[in-house]
Amino acid sequence: MHLYTTSASPNGQRVNVFLKEKGLEVPVTEVDIMGGENLGDEFKARNPFGRVPVLELDDGTCISESVSICRFFEGQQPEPNLFGNDPTEAAKIDMWIRRTDISFMMPIAQGFRNTTGIFKDREVCNEEWGKTSIEIARSTAVLFNDHLANNEYLLGDRYCVADMLLAITLGFAKRTGQDFFDLEHLKRFNDQIRQRPAFS
Amino acid sequence: MHLYTTSASPNGQRVNVFLKEKGLEVPVTEVDIMGGENLGDEFKARNPFGRVPVLELDDGTCISESVSICRFFEGQQPEPNLFGNDPTEAAKIDMWIRRTDISFMMPIAQGFRNTTGIFKDREVCNEEWGKTSIEIARSTAVLFNDHLANNEYLLGDRYCVADMLLAITLGFAKRTGQDFFDLEHLKRFNDQIRQRPAFS
Repeated sequence: MHLYTTSASPNGQRVNVFLKEKGLEVPVTEVDIMGGENLGDEFKARNPFGRVPVLELDDGTCISESVSICRFFEGQQPEPNLFGNDPTEAAKIDMWIRRTDISFMMPIAQGFRNTTGIFKDREVCNEEWGKTSIEIARSTAVLFNDHLANNEYLLGDRYCVADMLLAITLGFAKRTGQDFFDLEHLKRFNDQIRQRPAFS
Repeated sequence: MHLYTTSASPNGQRVNVFLKEKGLEVPVTEVDIMGGENLGDEFKARNPFGRVPVLELDDGTCISESVSICRFFEGQQPEPNLFGNDPTEAAKIDMWIRRTDISFMMPIAQGFRNTTGIFKDREVCNEEWGKTSIEIARSTAVLFNDHLANNEYLLGDRYCVADMLLAITLGFAKRTGQDFFDLEHLKRFNDQIRQRPAFS
């Protein structure tokens, strides 16, 4: 199997940290997304949606979407469990994955891309929408902060893949100018998650 | 257990169709999202993110996010299998769920909300971003159409939860003015999926 990724991107980091949590190693080819390599024919043969990362299995099957790749590795290497031990836990973890991705990472990314114009060579940028997105992201950050006031991890007492996604999302936000660490419970959470060996 | 939902909304439809696929019934309370009931204290005690649907279990655990609720029911009632029979299939289905939600439903919804101002009493609307979102959704529709030119279902030869999500997404888009049925493979797919008894 082979991983096509951009290790420095948030989605690349997700798979890298997950592999470390599982003690797995996979051969990697770096993809230059700033140079648009992900939009070329060779990459799009593996993922027509043009997004990193992509995991290519030995039979040629290509799996894209960082969380879906993590879910594949969970099936291959069940321990330590990161996607839930029973239907209720699995559903709650899936809920926190989706809240992190759809309600938080998405507006952070739209805020970043639309206000900086970093990909203006390939997409329409709308600065006003970028500013609105940054406000939406801040509202979601407050919801996460409130939840973490009374919970060590997103699920309460256990670490899971959604915690990893949230910490990586917070790190990406800070690097790109949306700093949520004035919210004390988010800061405590992030500091704690990043002490894990997989984040080193 | 009890389901708090807005049956006519796309996320409400997802859970309703999934329950029919599984042959399950759950007591339901309808939530008036147009009237903002989902933003009131009573609803937010079940889901601080203020979104329908929410499934409340007998011990008080609340699961929100339509796909996460479906994933819970898959664990409770494994047949017919709709989330994958092995790690590779589960990962591919998860990938198509995410492509449908993040790359397709999201821009369709942003296009709808920002151009119509349907929720302008509770969110900032940006008409230009709405128009851009509609263009993004059209680009994604073409990718789905191309894939379905050579595949009966998203996974090729088997029906799964992502097919259901895609058909409901296409129906929502059409009802709200984004009609993708000029794309022949998307039309064939939608017609085929909607012949299933669970959609009746």
